Amino acid sequence: MVFEEKTIDSERIYEGKILNLRKDKVHVVGDKTSYREIVEHNGGVTIAAITDEGCMVMVRQFRKAAEKVVLEAPAGKIDGEEAPLTAAIRELKEETGYTAGRIEHLTSFYSSIGYSDEKLHLYLATDLLPGETCFDPSEAIDIYEYPLAELKKMVLNGEIEDAKTIAAILIACEKIEVK
Amino acid sequence: MVFEEKTIDSERIYEGKILNLRKDKVHVVGDKTSYREIVEHNGGVTIAAITDEGCMVMVRQFRKAAEKVVLEAPAGKIDGEEAPLTAAIRELKEETGYTAGRIEHLTSFYSSIGYSDEKLHLYLATDLLPGETCFDPSEAIDIYEYPLAELKKMVLNGEIEDAKTIAAILIACEKIEVK
Repeated sequence: MVFEEKTIDSERIYEGKILNLRKDKVHVVGDKTSYREIVEHNGGVTIAAITDEGCMVMVRQFRKAAEKVVLEAPAGKIDGEEAPLTAAIRELKEETGYTAGRIEHLTSFYSSIGYSDEKLHLYLATDLLPGETCFDPSEAIDIYEYPLAELKKMVLNGEIEDAKTIAAILIACEKIEVK
Repeated sequence: MVFEEKTIDSERIYEGKILNLRKDKVHVVGDKTSYREIVEHNGGVTIAAITDEGCMVMVRQFRKAAEKVVLEAPAGKIDGEEAPLTAAIRELKEETGYTAGRIEHLTSFYSSIGYSDEKLHLYLATDLLPGETCFDPSEAIDIYEYPLAELKKMVLNGEIEDAKTIAAILIACEKIEVK
């Protein structure tokens, strides 16, 4: 039996630059009430960008939340009312310099469904043309290219520590048929 | 060139039940400062629980952040100082009733590395013994079992909308060698 948690009351806790936070009082099973803390996020995009040689383009950057440098697929926030496809094309260019001759939506998923409404849209980008990067001046990003088969091994041995990147690599491997 | 963002100042915005929120003033590249909004979360576990018949145990529940019912791998928060393995055994029992004869750590990953320190630990549970569920009275959870090959198709056609569940299914498929 699935129970829909209707909102009884909602408190705005914070409105920020990349996220807002609210606390909802909800009706739960058994005619009781409970609270749900919800992060509001505008959503983002992740790009599995595959070169003609079968390599995936990856970025390394310092992540404050993890307090370390992390290897990830190129990704970024959707700006305002921007379409996800537009954001994917923009972020790929900004972070890696590449323009995709072909870009295909693979799937979309919630990153932290227990407490965040952030939805990430995953794209497969191929027929890549190199160009200049143009990332935000407060970002410092290193770009690498790895064979997809090597990245798959890095997922399975725990070297890839970012959920969206794990999804991007393993779904790209299925599409490109990497064994 | 990778730049480590040292914290200059930190503001506590919210301390809640499942998450805290802080805003860090950080030193960024080019001798400038910027702000990072960081959700603090105690971390969680996700379990790829595979029956002797090659089915994966899944749960369906209403998720307030998504405002809908979502199909997911069993998962939950780590309680205080609880070890991730202990949390995985506990959550599997609570949400599905199953006790695993064998449980193996697969990998660990950040769910939303751009703004959250939440780390999820993924386990493979096999040799499952059925028993009674004992989930929280405010939760309403339906349990299903799907062949792993069917779940893999559901990932690729976009029916699985939860990042940790996509990782759990695709990594389990590699371990169990589902084609």
